Amino acid sequence: MNGNTEQQTAVNLFDQLKFNPDGLIPAIIQEQTTGRVLMMAWMNRASLEKTLETRQTHFWSRSRQKFWRKGETSGHTQTVKHIAFDCDGDTLLIQVEQIGAACHEGYKSCFFRSVENQGRTYQVSEKRLEMPGQS
Amino acid sequence: MNGNTEQQTAVNLFDQLKFNPDGLIPAIIQEQTTGRVLMMAWMNRASLEKTLETRQTHFWSRSRQKFWRKGETSGHTQTVKHIAFDCDGDTLLIQVEQIGAACHEGYKSCFFRSVENQGRTYQVSEKRLEMPGQS
Repeated sequence: MNGNTEQQTAVNLFDQLKFNPDGLIPAIIQEQTTGRVLMMAWMNRASLEKTLETRQTHFWSRSRQKFWRKGETSGHTQTVKHIAFDCDGDTLLIQVEQIGAACHEGYKSCFFRSVENQGRTYQVSEKRLEMPGQS
Repeated sequence: MNGNTEQQTAVNLFDQLKFNPDGLIPAIIQEQTTGRVLMMAWMNRASLEKTLETRQTHFWSRSRQKFWRKGETSGHTQTVKHIAFDCDGDTLLIQVEQIGAACHEGYKSCFFRSVENQGRTYQVSEKRLEMPGQS
């Protein structure tokens, strides 16, 4: 049993990570204080570098083919508190301090719809913080 | 402001979801009691149907090109407690009760490595529950 949780390993982080054929890696964004999963978005190398450098999340929009900083228009920024990567090196888990709604539909979390009855119904399981377009 | 969190919407869940060109959707697996993000894995339609039906997580392994039930060999099963999907319908968030280690490397969570010093070092940030090969 290796119970060592202290040792730091010098590393080029990018050598540990596997970007997909499009050069992207998924990042799960979690609110640090509540444990709430807020969203999942994709990063390319440049957006991860910028995230590490600025401590503000930056992503790559697959639909818009555009580099973006979360909250650049809405002010709903995410300050990075902790970054982890998984055993396969193909997913990031980023804990943040979220200002306002993470979801562009005005909900705190993008996961605002809950599946019920084995997928036969769903329910909006949280209150809207604001109307769409503001986030 | 639409603060309605009660109304159920009848739905074919699969019409709400966007599977990628390979027919897959990523599922973030979170431990319900602790809020801990345990892993991310991919589901195809069949594995999601089986997950809904049995309340045990089933995935599609991209590397092995194989349908699998989490814990089928290790006993480290995941009982589904809650399923949500995001605003784009392209990611699932599944809260579970996890038996033992979720990670095949013997850690509770696959996200056992924390990035430090802006990506110049990382640190194993949790204790191993067991040696690899058992999970």
